[in-house]
Amino acid sequence: MSSALRILPLGGLGEIGKNMTVVEYDVRIVVVDTGLSFPAPDQLGIDLVLPDFAYLRERAADIEAVFLTHGHEDHVGALPFVLREIGATAPLPPIHGGALTVAMVRSKLDEHRIRDVPIYETQPGEAVTAGPFEVEMIKMAHSIPDACAVAITCELGTTLVTGDYKFDQTPVDRVPADVSRLAELGGEGVLLLCGDSTNVDRPGISESESSVGPHLEQVFGRCGGRIVVTSFASNIHRVQQVIDAAAALGRKVALVGRSMRKNVNIGRDLGHIEVPDGILVNPREIDDFPDHRVVVISTGSQGEPLSALRRMSHGDHPQVELRAGDTVIFSATSIPGNERAVNETINRIYQLGADVITARDAPIHASGHGYAEELKLMINLTHPRYVMPVHGDHRRLRLHGQLAEAVGIDPESVFRGENGLPLEIDGGGAGFGEPEQAGMIFVDGVDFGDIEDVALRDRRMLSADGIFIVVATVSAQDGRSVAPPEVIFRGVPFLEQADGLLDDIRDAVEESLTRSATEQVREISLLQDHLHDDVAKYVYERLKRRPLVLPVVVEV
Amino acid sequence: MSSALRILPLGGLGEIGKNMTVVEYDVRIVVVDTGLSFPAPDQLGIDLVLPDFAYLRERAADIEAVFLTHGHEDHVGALPFVLREIGATAPLPPIHGGALTVAMVRSKLDEHRIRDVPIYETQPGEAVTAGPFEVEMIKMAHSIPDACAVAITCELGTTLVTGDYKFDQTPVDRVPADVSRLAELGGEGVLLLCGDSTNVDRPGISESESSVGPHLEQVFGRCGGRIVVTSFASNIHRVQQVIDAAAALGRKVALVGRSMRKNVNIGRDLGHIEVPDGILVNPREIDDFPDHRVVVISTGSQGEPLSALRRMSHGDHPQVELRAGDTVIFSATSIPGNERAVNETINRIYQLGADVITARDAPIHASGHGYAEELKLMINLTHPRYVMPVHGDHRRLRLHGQLAEAVGIDPESVFRGENGLPLEIDGGGAGFGEPEQAGMIFVDGVDFGDIEDVALRDRRMLSADGIFIVVATVSAQDGRSVAPPEVIFRGVPFLEQADGLLDDIRDAVEESLTRSATEQVREISLLQDHLHDDVAKYVYERLKRRPLVLPVVVEV
Repeated sequence: MSSALRILPLGGLGEIGKNMTVVEYDVRIVVVDTGLSFPAPDQLGIDLVLPDFAYLRERAADIEAVFLTHGHEDHVGALPFVLREIGATAPLPPIHGGALTVAMVRSKLDEHRIRDVPIYETQPGEAVTAGPFEVEMIKMAHSIPDACAVAITCELGTTLVTGDYKFDQTPVDRVPADVSRLAELGGEGVLLLCGDSTNVDRPGISESESSVGPHLEQVFGRCGGRIVVTSFASNIHRVQQVIDAAAALGRKVALVGRSMRKNVNIGRDLGHIEVPDGILVNPREIDDFPDHRVVVISTGSQGEPLSALRRMSHGDHPQVELRAGDTVIFSATSIPGNERAVNETINRIYQLGADVITARDAPIHASGHGYAEELKLMINLTHPRYVMPVHGDHRRLRLHGQLAEAVGIDPESVFRGENGLPLEIDGGGAGFGEPEQAGMIFVDGVDFGDIEDVALRDRRMLSADGIFIVVATVSAQDGRSVAPPEVIFRGVPFLEQADGLLDDIRDAVEESLTRSATEQVREISLLQDHLHDDVAKYVYERLKRRPLVLPVVVEV
Repeated sequence: MSSALRILPLGGLGEIGKNMTVVEYDVRIVVVDTGLSFPAPDQLGIDLVLPDFAYLRERAADIEAVFLTHGHEDHVGALPFVLREIGATAPLPPIHGGALTVAMVRSKLDEHRIRDVPIYETQPGEAVTAGPFEVEMIKMAHSIPDACAVAITCELGTTLVTGDYKFDQTPVDRVPADVSRLAELGGEGVLLLCGDSTNVDRPGISESESSVGPHLEQVFGRCGGRIVVTSFASNIHRVQQVIDAAAALGRKVALVGRSMRKNVNIGRDLGHIEVPDGILVNPREIDDFPDHRVVVISTGSQGEPLSALRRMSHGDHPQVELRAGDTVIFSATSIPGNERAVNETINRIYQLGADVITARDAPIHASGHGYAEELKLMINLTHPRYVMPVHGDHRRLRLHGQLAEAVGIDPESVFRGENGLPLEIDGGGAGFGEPEQAGMIFVDGVDFGDIEDVALRDRRMLSADGIFIVVATVSAQDGRSVAPPEVIFRGVPFLEQADGLLDDIRDAVEESLTRSATEQVREISLLQDHLHDDVAKYVYERLKRRPLVLPVVVEV
């Protein structure tokens, strides 16, 4: 193992989200990104989904450093959980990232009350030594400032993990992706390229972020009343462009939503955002200005349940009451899976009489991920010996592999990986090794771990059909029922229509107990099994539904 | 009331789905469509959503007839429920529809064991007298054969309910929408137009259904292995075109999925579908043919949980095992809200090694709903005095109203309605009357009705955090605990990590009982309230979660 370079993806392959890659050489480890994802609708009651990082827990002492490509949740969100676990058995490794990434992560660790973390703001181009590796962050463009690729060099060569990127030639901060440095690395010849696959299915190249501003200003110009713009709070450059458009048209700006205010503050501290004097007003003051002098920038572009915009659409936001004449501008697209929540929010806004403009109506959004031609450019710049696409579902990984072949990469050198499957490279070649433990772990309330399937299965039953609890009081001597059984239910509708159903279930309980007593069934657990089966069968016959049936037998 | 025409929408306004419109004159009623919709993710365990048709139940004796525009669930799905309710107090009214509509509805009523329904296949152009109304169905084009608009004439004039439509000049059955008859009605002057708003946000005109066939054939030509095409089973003309493309390329066709086989059978019986001799094979036989000689037509284009395609994507369909070389073609688009299920299905198909082609990759789907220019044409053909857009969420209704104004309808004559809000028209003009009861009722298992909010709220709690049940056995004399309390839980994960939590909860129960006994609390319900509050508080402190806590007190 010590002579091979191992690249082990723990998340982000065959899925969108929870990106995490382990790079290992000579028994030493560098981790790139520690992301999370959000639960699917059938993962009931789950708050967050993390990559299963058992591998890191066991190898805690071997981790030399963690590099974070940028501050989005799908790249940094699992960090508090990872640190808590690996910190239990080893000193914490240093954590590196761009300025904004570090500022956002610090604030997040603070919320988790994780202190004294060795976290470093790392400049692009700075060489960081991490065990057998030399690591360098390379400036890229994305929908959040300070995004970087990570080049990890050991004696076998350089592994380039791109992070999320686009080749924006006119980014809002005027510092484009460092194409020259990528070309330089390509001149030396990159050993392995792990590239973002998010937009591999879109032909051509992505729109520049700075193209959004003029379109926003045009749209603003057509709005006679108040304007509410919603976007991702972390898209600092987008917020900047909204502020600029507002300023150009003489409108005041109010920031609404906790993460919007927080990120704008962080962005201002770092000089990523410039707010003209006197333009910001408190959301409580917007009614002091004429409608055509107000822009509200709000969270909630994904229809998130407790977000400011969702509350406005329900008419229960404390400061902003939407009404006819207002225009709500979605400067964002729906992340797959959020379409229903977004559509519902838009529909409610129309119901309140306000208008809605989305990225389908005007070019007021630009993706943060490069399109197919940009992915090709990345390959042509870096001349990789091997390619393993990352950050994408199975479809995108396949398309990215085909794209690499179209650019001239030998099909034998393109690896379609999976979470947990290590790519091993040595002087002789490259190939997949034995799979390691990988998958997902759930965060539920304050706990996290490998949720027992049975808990989720129970939740599914409970959510679909509710629960019946029958409590039987039996004599410890002969197992006969000594008090009327209690029947309690929750989440089962229409019971008042089912004449005497509860009485009938009580009868079924008594009958089951009598039968068990006759059959000399005395063990409580067996008695409960019979009771469960008899009552479940009876309830199904009557209701044609399968609520969870929980029998409780009290012996007196 | 007797002198006014009343148009009362009971569903389909401010939403997509469950279309139902009541047309009333001189105390007599005609109903157009009885549709349903499907539950939102937070309507836990609900199977179907129906319009609240209390109004029809109360007026059962006044219903002269029901007209069904076409056979889709969002237009006919509530019929069995409606018939059962209104049939309880009055003779069933006659039901009219096109040939396929009637055949599909008959089969559905059969499944519900509703017999002896007076249901009539009605030809376009045939005049049907229904109380004070003359009613005529007018041939339209849609994504299902035999779709019709309904023209309902009383002495005040004609109300035209379009149903779902497009102006397809080259439909697959070569019988385009009856533009001449619409123009004729327009010459006389339509009083009120209730038009489909589904695609009002798409500019231009929709693609012809017959444009799909040649593209399918092209795509087939590029596939070297087996082909699986998924589409809506009711889209008989699409199925015809898939069969034609297969025949042209010398491929056999297997039908997979219950509704696919059923609808093709109905379609063949009615002459809507022609299958060349010898082309259909049993799904069990497909392995007898070379891969490039096989096309499977399958249900599951929306990623529905138990559909044939979803099962294939999970590798557990009994006849079709997807593998590398296969191509799955989605000849359909995702209905809003289904995107996640569809994406998940596509991702799994890629994981199995097969390829996927969707309507984003090639023009292999055409919408069944006309675009903006077709909606304008409808208005210009029918010259309505009043317009009330239907079939659309608030956004689409608003856009459709604006479109009508753009075509020259007086803004005062455009009515943006709501479910339950009757539009009343008499010689003097038109305006909204007093709202009637409307909304949604849920079908849950075999029951349906106005589900108590509390049942759904309980389900939400149960699904998010599970349930704790504590059973206390107390003395009837002094209320003191006489046996160790039982603590049972379901759907609460990580409990094995919470050392001794169950013991601690038992202690909390004992403590609560002791306190109640000391305070002379003897009433069982009060005892349970205290127990609930004490345990819920204790559980929250320990777990930071709020499972449903159910206390049961047994007195002995």
